[in-house]
Amino acid sequence: MRIPILKLHDYLLISVQVELDDQTALQFQEDVLEKIHEEGSRGVVIDLTSVDMIDSFIAKVLGDVVDMSNLMGARVVLTGIQPAVAITLIDMGIVLDDVPTALDLEQGLDRLQLELED
Amino acid sequence: MRIPILKLHDYLLISVQVELDDQTALQFQEDVLEKIHEEGSRGVVIDLTSVDMIDSFIAKVLGDVVDMSNLMGARVVLTGIQPAVAITLIDMGIVLDDVPTALDLEQGLDRLQLELED
Repeated sequence: MRIPILKLHDYLLISVQVELDDQTALQFQEDVLEKIHEEGSRGVVIDLTSVDMIDSFIAKVLGDVVDMSNLMGARVVLTGIQPAVAITLIDMGIVLDDVPTALDLEQGLDRLQLELED
Repeated sequence: MRIPILKLHDYLLISVQVELDDQTALQFQEDVLEKIHEEGSRGVVIDLTSVDMIDSFIAKVLGDVVDMSNLMGARVVLTGIQPAVAITLIDMGIVLDDVPTALDLEQGLDRLQLELED
């Protein structure tokens, strides 16, 4: 099962609305990087509003997607991290270092715009 | 399995990237109408770029989504209909009456903007 990736002008919009198991997360990582390459995207918004739980493996994969995308020249913003997810991440000592975040998809796009203007 | 629906400002963006079986299509219909109601969306873009095949039942469900959304006060644009799908629809004599279409997501959003300005 794959997570749909929408292309909108220079950006990719991704709303994760399935439970992220390890296999789905790794497939997702590959698909995002492939799509950035294919479309020449400058920015990516990954919306996690519908994600209730993140474990350390998924957190690492997400962090890696951000780093890998940056290497390829695209900025990534994570949006809509739920309170319970934020609590779990901090409790488990997982730090999403230098990962730009925003409240929702709209604010994520605004944030991306700002990041790309720097 | 549900098709993810993204909310962006006044619009809903939907990229159908799974095979539409009957059950998925009906669930999709319900989810779109529910989400329009919930978010107060004025327009919806349904992108079919990744859909290779549409049968008469799916075509009817999609046509119904458009009519139902219009009743609720939201305009719908279908985008990215593949050549093979267009051929099948016309060959089968299925007419998506008065359904606005566009080439891709970007042009769908532009079309929506125009429709809503009328």
